[in-house]
Amino acid sequence: MDKSLFTKHISQKFNQELENVRQRVLTMGGMVEEQIGDSLEALASLDSNLCKKVIERDEKVNAYEVSIDEECARILAKRQPAAGDLRLVVAIIKTITDLERIGDEAEKIAHMANHIALSLEDSMPSKKQFGAVMHLGSHVKTMLNEALDAFARLDVEAALKVAQKETTADKEYNAITRQLITYMMEDPRSITSALDVMWSARALERIGDHARNICEYVIYLVEGKDVRHVSLEEMEKLAQGRQE
Amino acid sequence: MDKSLFTKHISQKFNQELENVRQRVLTMGGMVEEQIGDSLEALASLDSNLCKKVIERDEKVNAYEVSIDEECARILAKRQPAAGDLRLVVAIIKTITDLERIGDEAEKIAHMANHIALSLEDSMPSKKQFGAVMHLGSHVKTMLNEALDAFARLDVEAALKVAQKETTADKEYNAITRQLITYMMEDPRSITSALDVMWSARALERIGDHARNICEYVIYLVEGKDVRHVSLEEMEKLAQGRQE
Repeated sequence: MDKSLFTKHISQKFNQELENVRQRVLTMGGMVEEQIGDSLEALASLDSNLCKKVIERDEKVNAYEVSIDEECARILAKRQPAAGDLRLVVAIIKTITDLERIGDEAEKIAHMANHIALSLEDSMPSKKQFGAVMHLGSHVKTMLNEALDAFARLDVEAALKVAQKETTADKEYNAITRQLITYMMEDPRSITSALDVMWSARALERIGDHARNICEYVIYLVEGKDVRHVSLEEMEKLAQGRQE
Repeated sequence: MDKSLFTKHISQKFNQELENVRQRVLTMGGMVEEQIGDSLEALASLDSNLCKKVIERDEKVNAYEVSIDEECARILAKRQPAAGDLRLVVAIIKTITDLERIGDEAEKIAHMANHIALSLEDSMPSKKQFGAVMHLGSHVKTMLNEALDAFARLDVEAALKVAQKETTADKEYNAITRQLITYMMEDPRSITSALDVMWSARALERIGDHARNICEYVIYLVEGKDVRHVSLEEMEKLAQGRQE
């Protein structure tokens, strides 16, 4: 982290506290990445044990959110941070909400995988459709990984690049939905499991949204500008303005 | 609001600032309630103009979120609030995120309604199914209304009651999904519009989740306890502990 962005504190302990909480966000992020990876593997393998593991581990993610939140409230109360330090704490409070919701989406995918595994007697969506969902999954997992990297390095350009990738995630999601609808129409016995695949794709698309949110907080943190609800073009202009 | 919960400030201006930002949250909440109501009306009437109105108005909701967020950051930096005041500001930052996402869900319903309106040639879900969705919609709209009331009056008992209502919303949502799946299987030509109805029901179920989140912030604000990821029984125990 480019520490020059933040105030040098007379209190070495305050520096340490900020650094600790930042590190814990990254640890929580890593845990959530693992949850996405495992939920995708569970969907590919329809392995009920892995589904169970993902579902149970969501509690750990939730506990991280509550504990980081408490630490942020404590820092706000005790240290009364200003400027960049305050933006860091606010960005963390928002980031962990998105990380926790990504964890919820991974848990949902594990539930869907379990549901599909239990209904193997029905007609199943084809490998091609699962393949498209896996592709989307790998795409949004990379988005989250890069968003966390941008957060760790306070890198606005990297954050912008991740935000741009959301368009691809949306396109892939729409294509999957269209394919699945055709499939359901052709073989109505497949509707239940096709819907499970569709909900999984939806969960992945939302993970992409949350990764984009995290990038927006990185930009807010570094630039002091709120770029939520701003179009990609406008976000790029902001970044260009910076480079000039 | 029971102002005794909060520090009496020597600065009359600080009191005024906190009260103003609290009022703006309630205004934003009222706007979001209207969005839910209009999106449900659009779904019932399949009125494209009303759909458009809801979709366009979402920008206003977004602008409210950004501006209240900025005001909160300003108060944190300038006033360095402690204890109950700090919790109020943190609870507001979290509440407006949920309100904004409820606005997004209302916008999605309007998109679905528009989509159904444009595909009238297809086989349509029956009035019965629309009726069930409307019922769920009215249930979660009431939940949001009561959550905002609990926030305005800092009423923990009321907040708990709203949180309990989420179970009913989940049950209604599951019943709608089951009905629609049966319907799609019987008449595959209805799949596209039945899915639009299903997404709308899903959006309503999520609105119920967000209303529950707001109630959890009210409890955190008043009690200083984080009740997220805590079961309903545990939440009730907390409230009982209070009454004893």
